[in-house]
Amino acid sequence: MSTDDDRLARQLRFVVEIDRLKTVLRQTLLTDASRQENSAEHSWHLALMAALLAEHAGAPVDVARTMTMVLVHDLVEIDAGDAFCYDAAANVGREERERRAAERVFGLLPAEQAAGLRALWEEFEAGETADARFAVALDRFQPLLQNIHSGGGSWRAHGIARGQVLRRMDPIRLGAPGLWPQVLAIVEQAVAAGHLREDP
Amino acid sequence: MSTDDDRLARQLRFVVEIDRLKTVLRQTLLTDASRQENSAEHSWHLALMAALLAEHAGAPVDVARTMTMVLVHDLVEIDAGDAFCYDAAANVGREERERRAAERVFGLLPAEQAAGLRALWEEFEAGETADARFAVALDRFQPLLQNIHSGGGSWRAHGIARGQVLRRMDPIRLGAPGLWPQVLAIVEQAVAAGHLREDP
Repeated sequence: MSTDDDRLARQLRFVVEIDRLKTVLRQTLLTDASRQENSAEHSWHLALMAALLAEHAGAPVDVARTMTMVLVHDLVEIDAGDAFCYDAAANVGREERERRAAERVFGLLPAEQAAGLRALWEEFEAGETADARFAVALDRFQPLLQNIHSGGGSWRAHGIARGQVLRRMDPIRLGAPGLWPQVLAIVEQAVAAGHLREDP
Repeated sequence: MSTDDDRLARQLRFVVEIDRLKTVLRQTLLTDASRQENSAEHSWHLALMAALLAEHAGAPVDVARTMTMVLVHDLVEIDAGDAFCYDAAANVGREERERRAAERVFGLLPAEQAAGLRALWEEFEAGETADARFAVALDRFQPLLQNIHSGGGSWRAHGIARGQVLRRMDPIRLGAPGLWPQVLAIVEQAVAAGHLREDP
C-alpha cells in the first residue's frame, strides 16, 4: 500500500469511527421533548451557533477554528461516554477516561491531522483562549435553550435547582457576555414555570 | 425592544427552530444499523469530513466556507422533509418546496445573516463552485460509507442496483477525485456482498 493510500485509509477509518458519536446520548432533550439528544447532533448545533453568534463573544474569535473545535469537542465520548454535568459520581475519573479516548480516537488519523484536532480538543478543555471560552459558553448555552423549550427537560428529570444552573452557566459571562442577560432571564422563567427548583 | 435585543431574539429563534432538523430522518442507517440517521448528525459528519478531506477535492477549496455550507445544506428539510434520492415520485416538486422552506427558515435570522446562509445553500444546490462541488461530493460519499459499513443499509432496504449508485456518485469524480477510486472499490465490494443488485 502506498503512503497516499495509507493516508486516505487512516482518514476514512476515522470518518467511519466517529459515526458512533451519534449513539452517545446526552441528558438534554430535543425541544419537542420526543427523545434525548445525541452528542453528534449537539455538536452540529454548536457549530452553527458559532457561525451566527460570534458577535456576542467576550473577545474577537476565529469562527472557523471555533466551529472545528465544537465539532470535535465531544469525540472522546465515543469511548468515555457522556457524564451528566450535575452528576458528581459520573464525573469521577472522567479526565483520565477522556485522555485515553483522545489518544485512541484522534490517533486513527494521519499524525499531523491527529495532532491538530487533539490540540483543539485540549484547548477546549482548558478553556483559556478566546476561541475556547466562546466554545465553552456555547456548550453551556445550548442545553439551556433546549431545556427551556422542552418544558424543563433534564432539569425536571433530575430535580435541578437555580443555583446549580447559574454556576454551570457562569463561563458564559466571560465567553459570551452578550448572551448573559438571556441566561438570567431564562433561569428566572424556568424557576417561575417550576422547571427548576428554588435553591434549598 | 431595542434593535440589538431584536437582533439577538431573531438569532435565538433560528437557533431553536433548527433543532427540528434532528427529527428529520434519512434513509441511511448508522454504521451499527441500529436506526436511521437524521439530517443534523449527517450534517455534522459532513462538516468534519470537509475539515479532514479537503486535500482530495478537485480544486482548492475554502474549508471554512465548505463547512458552513454543509452545516446548512439540509436545513430546508425542516419544512420540506428528506426525499430519498432513488425515489423519483418523492422528488417531484422538491425544488419548490425547498425554496419556500429556505424563505421561511433562513428568514428567521437578521437580514444579512439570512442572506449569507441562504446564498451558501443556493451555491450548494447549484453545485458549480469548487466549494459546492466538494460539498456535494461529500454529501454523496458519506452515505456510501454508511451503507457499506451497515451491511447494505438503504441499498438493501430499497433493492438498489450498481448503476443507480454509480450515477448518484458521479459528482465525486469532479468534486473529490481523490475519493473516486474508493467509490469504485466500495461499489464492487457491495455488489459482491449482495448489498447492491447487478444492473438488470
